[in-house]
Amino acid sequence: MIRGAILRDVIEEQHEQAPQPSAAGLAEPMRSRWSASVYDDRHRLTDTEVETLLRAAQWAPSAGNSQPWLFFVCVPGTANHDRLVATLSRGNSSWVPRASGVFLTAAHVHSGEDADAPAYSDYALYDVGQAAAHLTLQARSMGLHAHQFAGFDHHVLAESLGVPATHRLLTGIAVGVAGDPGDVDERTAARDHRDRERRPLEEWVRHGRYEA
Amino acid sequence: MIRGAILRDVIEEQHEQAPQPSAAGLAEPMRSRWSASVYDDRHRLTDTEVETLLRAAQWAPSAGNSQPWLFFVCVPGTANHDRLVATLSRGNSSWVPRASGVFLTAAHVHSGEDADAPAYSDYALYDVGQAAAHLTLQARSMGLHAHQFAGFDHHVLAESLGVPATHRLLTGIAVGVAGDPGDVDERTAARDHRDRERRPLEEWVRHGRYEA
Repeated sequence: MIRGAILRDVIEEQHEQAPQPSAAGLAEPMRSRWSASVYDDRHRLTDTEVETLLRAAQWAPSAGNSQPWLFFVCVPGTANHDRLVATLSRGNSSWVPRASGVFLTAAHVHSGEDADAPAYSDYALYDVGQAAAHLTLQARSMGLHAHQFAGFDHHVLAESLGVPATHRLLTGIAVGVAGDPGDVDERTAARDHRDRERRPLEEWVRHGRYEA
Repeated sequence: MIRGAILRDVIEEQHEQAPQPSAAGLAEPMRSRWSASVYDDRHRLTDTEVETLLRAAQWAPSAGNSQPWLFFVCVPGTANHDRLVATLSRGNSSWVPRASGVFLTAAHVHSGEDADAPAYSDYALYDVGQAAAHLTLQARSMGLHAHQFAGFDHHVLAESLGVPATHRLLTGIAVGVAGDPGDVDERTAARDHRDRERRPLEEWVRHGRYEA
């Protein structure tokens, strides 16, 4: 209970530092989640933390409980981390390697290796998105930040990881704790001070037909 | 604070009644989320609750903040609810109409109306899955259950809702409070007593290459 209370304080403090969301009415961890880019590169995830984050993904719902997900764990000092870092886009090279770990997501999209094999599930990408959201929100509940990205060479990385033709490599989820903006270049530091914006509900919510 | 404590008690009590997950180490609301099928058809969502659920979806992350989602609200007594109920599969007809409301999700998949228009985003389905997960988890935090489903005639429903050719209708998220199993048919009541199972981590997590 005490640990829970301390974590809540940490979350609230970090929330105050974060770009202001108009999301005050949401429950935690949805309320204070945002995609931080400045990480403390001395922080490491424990094996238990890595497992708990994966279990959050595991318990996400999926169409017919198909669970069409595949995750690659990339923590600093491992071959998987080297493989990822080698394929990062220039913009992501400045911040992703400082995170405590990256979870790469892939979706089971084809039921066979042939190009014309039927889809494994019409909802494979949607369900992997759910699993990624659950992992991301579990991270926030543990006082961690998580930032999803897709700026890497998908073809090269899929090949170096041996991702089978039945699967499609999708995103990375960088996880870590907030670092000192003075330790990173100005452009990366500035990312964490951008306003967080969203389209107003009227644009994407309908209570009747699309065009009433 | 008192309301928060009461909600936590409600969540814990419902969790005890739920099929047992091996997810005890997760944070709420991920820990106690499951897809309940028995709803109390006398319960109604307030307009504020509907808005809060949509705001949870609104604040989900998305590729380049593209927010490729479109939601249709279907609450009992409205034309949208009638449109949905008319297209439900036989299996879903027994339980979906008893929920307090359904949020239909659609993804912005094409950048133009032509069949050969380029993709709006390579991550549209993935991101709509994230928005659906956020809405689903926010529901759980509010003491509600949510159950996603895709068993309806997508073509007929998309036409009756006027979903544009740029978008793809995906899933429904039924939201409500637990009902009395004695009020529903045996098959529906039995759904809530099935064991919840997931593939073990070894099957879908890699710390090295896919086949090391």
